[in-house]
Amino acid sequence: MTGPHDSLRIDLGERSYDILIGRGLLGRAEAFDGLPRSRHGIVVTNDTVAPLYGEHLARALAARHERVEQVVLPDGEAHKDWPTLNRIFDHLLAEACDRKTVLYALGGGVVGDMTGFAAACYMRGVPFVQLPTTLLAQVDSSVGGKTAINHPAGKNMIGAFYQPLRVLADLDTLATLPPRELSAGLAEVIKYGPIADEAFLGWIEANLDALMQREPEALARAIRRSCEIKAWVVGQDEREAGLRAILNFGHTFGHAIEAVLGYGQWLHGEAVGCGMVLAIELSARLGLVGDAEVRRLTRLVERAGLPTRLPPVAPEPLIEAMRVDKKTEDGQLRFVVVEAPGRAGLRAVDEGLVREVLAAHAA
Amino acid sequence: MTGPHDSLRIDLGERSYDILIGRGLLGRAEAFDGLPRSRHGIVVTNDTVAPLYGEHLARALAARHERVEQVVLPDGEAHKDWPTLNRIFDHLLAEACDRKTVLYALGGGVVGDMTGFAAACYMRGVPFVQLPTTLLAQVDSSVGGKTAINHPAGKNMIGAFYQPLRVLADLDTLATLPPRELSAGLAEVIKYGPIADEAFLGWIEANLDALMQREPEALARAIRRSCEIKAWVVGQDEREAGLRAILNFGHTFGHAIEAVLGYGQWLHGEAVGCGMVLAIELSARLGLVGDAEVRRLTRLVERAGLPTRLPPVAPEPLIEAMRVDKKTEDGQLRFVVVEAPGRAGLRAVDEGLVREVLAAHAA
Repeated sequence: MTGPHDSLRIDLGERSYDILIGRGLLGRAEAFDGLPRSRHGIVVTNDTVAPLYGEHLARALAARHERVEQVVLPDGEAHKDWPTLNRIFDHLLAEACDRKTVLYALGGGVVGDMTGFAAACYMRGVPFVQLPTTLLAQVDSSVGGKTAINHPAGKNMIGAFYQPLRVLADLDTLATLPPRELSAGLAEVIKYGPIADEAFLGWIEANLDALMQREPEALARAIRRSCEIKAWVVGQDEREAGLRAILNFGHTFGHAIEAVLGYGQWLHGEAVGCGMVLAIELSARLGLVGDAEVRRLTRLVERAGLPTRLPPVAPEPLIEAMRVDKKTEDGQLRFVVVEAPGRAGLRAVDEGLVREVLAAHAA
Repeated sequence: MTGPHDSLRIDLGERSYDILIGRGLLGRAEAFDGLPRSRHGIVVTNDTVAPLYGEHLARALAARHERVEQVVLPDGEAHKDWPTLNRIFDHLLAEACDRKTVLYALGGGVVGDMTGFAAACYMRGVPFVQLPTTLLAQVDSSVGGKTAINHPAGKNMIGAFYQPLRVLADLDTLATLPPRELSAGLAEVIKYGPIADEAFLGWIEANLDALMQREPEALARAIRRSCEIKAWVVGQDEREAGLRAILNFGHTFGHAIEAVLGYGQWLHGEAVGCGMVLAIELSARLGLVGDAEVRRLTRLVERAGLPTRLPPVAPEPLIEAMRVDKKTEDGQLRFVVVEAPGRAGLRAVDEGLVREVLAAHAA
């Protein structure tokens, strides 16, 4: 392959795959070398990303498939639902796509989650390739095989664990990312510090300006380290029985915020940013970390352009939303907390304490 | 466990499970020993089966779960669709069911396929137990882990490979089975003869009257041998890359008949019965078997109360429906054919020959 790029192997036995990180990958036919060729190559994307990179990608794929087609979904978390997913199935069936058809997910986390779930379910499984175009998707959806759609009663409630054949994280796509989305992606990068690598937290603090200015070297390093940590965690716990839950640091609060506000009001990463501030506060109130850790993370979240206080919503619906969180067991709320700088764990938490944290961070 | 029953181990590594075959299993609490206990046990069933066995089962489960609840779906293949599947998700979310919730599929193949797919997708996977109440489900859905729903454009197009924790094939439930459904189940039993075991074909011929009269010993043996053969095939090819396709003998024609007639007109087993007659005819026209084999299988299908001629539909829509079959590759029709008595294989077949077979069996 021409052009410099970094490569990271995700080791999952026969489901192993590579993440390539570099500039201009989407337009390079060689970046797809070794992937299966078949009659149909179906690019699933959204109406924001399609005009930016759709043709570019179609040219790179032209020699791989007799027919390269696009399914363009409406952009946004609000459309991560069954009717939109079904548009992918409608297209695949209308074109008589067989089980060798390769799906390409070109877009952010929503496109990746939906395309992955469509690939998991179509004819009980067809191959797919992730082409994440947001920082959040590059650090978060690249590893772990989580795919899903939302249900009116809960986020990501219907889904599958399903691995891509390859991930291409093209750094050039981050140049067109709106500032809010860049910040949202940084939330997931920052997350890896408190839960797994205090040195990385220090590196992010030192390089946050470069990241905010989208310097490719800094972004490449942030993406690589995030994916490495996530791969290490997921490699030990592919189906989320235990350790993997730490990746949900900030997410129980975050998902509740998204559910109560209505999907699409705050970006997922914004909700996670705020959620991490609440989760470190919860950790401090459990006596696990000191106020210095709370201030340090809060400051970093703020510098990354993310909210550190709750939106104007009542605590009751937030608690209710947390009750349907996938980590809840036998009705008991459970949270990922920081047990010491760079180390996290899952704890059952008294509801009263959760209410205190919500009150302390009310809008 | 009290009471005699037979047991068959399906060996799939960490996803291994047992099939218990016997009388009165649904009402025996011991038949569930060793399965996970959790807060919620959700019985998914249909409005035909619920009044017959719902309470019976609920009593057997009472000590295993704090809450045992029923989701009652409308009966029939016509409801094997997304809106009906979503009723399961609605219930699970309304009751705040967590990922330790156990789903119990109480009913025929439709209930099993939908419950299994719901279990595969809810929170990306919760455990489930198969309690098949039709002969077809006992021989066909017990092994293989295939779950799915239909799409308006094709049968079983949206689904997953997902294994149950256990299967209980309660022979007593076959006593209430309508005669058409018994015949439909026998179609899948008969199938195992031509594709894998000529001696079993002879045994079925000799015992068909006992099977039609629902003698438990004959049924138990037919179910066990069918499951054994299927397990042997699936064990070598869990994800349907090759050998497993032979289990679809008669199904390419059968699915096309169902799709063109509209789901629910003919039972799946009836369509497969007719489909097998067409598939053995195709095998003969390919020079693989003689006319004696065609006559032998046709006669047995007929004795089992199954159709041996096509319903009154034109060939064109049947061909079109076959084109979206999951075995189709790069636009070429492929069929499971009998290559010699007791041995089957997958062949690409010329469309002209398929048309000849359709014409020879037109209504």
